[in-house]
Amino acid sequence: MSTVGFIGLGAMGLPMACNLVARGFAVRGFDVRTAAMDALAAAGGVRAGSAAEAALGAELLVFMVVNAGQAEQALFADGVLDALAPGGIVLLMSTCPPGAVERLAERVLALGRRFVDAPVSGGVVGAVGGTLTIMAAAPAPTLAAAKPALEALGSKLFHVGERPGQGAVNQLLCGVHIVAAAEAFSLAAKVGVDVKVVLEILGGSAASSWMLRDRGPRMLQAEPEVTSAVDIFVKDLGIVLEAGRETKAALPLAAIAHQLFLATSGRGDGAADDSQVIRSYLALNGGMAKP
Amino acid sequence: MSTVGFIGLGAMGLPMACNLVARGFAVRGFDVRTAAMDALAAAGGVRAGSAAEAALGAELLVFMVVNAGQAEQALFADGVLDALAPGGIVLLMSTCPPGAVERLAERVLALGRRFVDAPVSGGVVGAVGGTLTIMAAAPAPTLAAAKPALEALGSKLFHVGERPGQGAVNQLLCGVHIVAAAEAFSLAAKVGVDVKVVLEILGGSAASSWMLRDRGPRMLQAEPEVTSAVDIFVKDLGIVLEAGRETKAALPLAAIAHQLFLATSGRGDGAADDSQVIRSYLALNGGMAKP
Repeated sequence: MSTVGFIGLGAMGLPMACNLVARGFAVRGFDVRTAAMDALAAAGGVRAGSAAEAALGAELLVFMVVNAGQAEQALFADGVLDALAPGGIVLLMSTCPPGAVERLAERVLALGRRFVDAPVSGGVVGAVGGTLTIMAAAPAPTLAAAKPALEALGSKLFHVGERPGQGAVNQLLCGVHIVAAAEAFSLAAKVGVDVKVVLEILGGSAASSWMLRDRGPRMLQAEPEVTSAVDIFVKDLGIVLEAGRETKAALPLAAIAHQLFLATSGRGDGAADDSQVIRSYLALNGGMAKP
Repeated sequence: MSTVGFIGLGAMGLPMACNLVARGFAVRGFDVRTAAMDALAAAGGVRAGSAAEAALGAELLVFMVVNAGQAEQALFADGVLDALAPGGIVLLMSTCPPGAVERLAERVLALGRRFVDAPVSGGVVGAVGGTLTIMAAAPAPTLAAAKPALEALGSKLFHVGERPGQGAVNQLLCGVHIVAAAEAFSLAAKVGVDVKVVLEILGGSAASSWMLRDRGPRMLQAEPEVTSAVDIFVKDLGIVLEAGRETKAALPLAAIAHQLFLATSGRGDGAADDSQVIRSYLALNGGMAKP
């Protein structure tokens, strides 16, 4: 599995593809943005003229695209699957709705290739550092074949079973925890306690979450650096709720959290750092003077 | 401040009062349950015949009662404040609505005593070990006078300012995080990923929270040990929402979380461990076979 095609060289995909190059994989990458392919080439990878060219003869094909529809289009309409070596592995690393992933996997298997669903957690920082958490669903022999590549991308590799869905569960908690932190700051501001003291206390108490510690400080900034955008959670909590619709499960906290990300995006802040979902609480409740 | 009255010797209050005794304070305690006073006496404290008797001549009076109404009744109707030494300090350690606490504090100050709002985090384990997180709101000189006693009760003492409310912010996050963990397990079960693997992965990822790590394992048990009851969060999220009503703040996640704890209690599980709010998701969504 030393020849890798890589489709989707965005904020996550580009550093992931570069990490594969650094670990000795022959990487041929494709993205609609030529600047991204220039960056990959500068790091030692190869530019492809199309998605199918990226897959040509590859043993492993990584997708780090926006949604399952993009992967489906590339695989079945743009000739990617035909170009992939027989027995080759499709590695879908975007977080996608479990039902859509299962349908993709069935079609890939029916055409003689293998499939691994491998959503990640850890954001751009994890993608750059090769320290992503990877939640892989696949038969064990398939996962074993993909393992060297996965270990170049992440520091924590979990085999969650054969069925996809772990990514949705992960994003449910991440999204709800960000919004919960924003809601807590909003209440703190309204009752008149110092939001900086709140952050200091709660980051180390039973009220803490990874997201509170990571996003909390940026919630107190007016224009923080963007490490992951509001629109990513508009998408990911949408996937969570789609997983709920497909399995007929009520997910009331995720539904509320999605509404607040949606409204933030709707006011024009979709490209802002996801901590800025707090602006929905400012719009709703007012009462918070940012320092 | 070596003579302490202690009112409310429940699951939290009794070990807290015993910790004060162990640190050399003369503690006179009162509770309506005589067994609790027996336990305090066995640890070296003194039983009081009434709340006022517990306060008689004390320099510091601790309340660890169910709600602000109980403290109000004791202070002003049952003669406790008159019994407390002039300049003595009322230390309210129950989590109560910020508005109610401010009204209590004003009345206490008007009658020549001092007041500290000092809600805690850390549960029975923290109460027994003297490792509570204490979020104190008071003027600095008042807090300084109460500090030796507070240091006997907790290992992290924060001065959050002069206004109460930090306890409500803390409990908003704790309550929402417990329910979010239950919701995530419910989705995991519905999409068919192993809930034990979910717990292992998410406890160490960007999706983690203190509550997920602490309550998550007990959510997977049918009848876990009770470390804090469902009805405590029925009360505490009620306080959070009351703080929101008083300040006219929308708190949609807290409102949803409260509904799920309420329904759990309403089905007869109010005395169960608070992790069992997951039973509301089982009732709603089914689909989760407990091991």
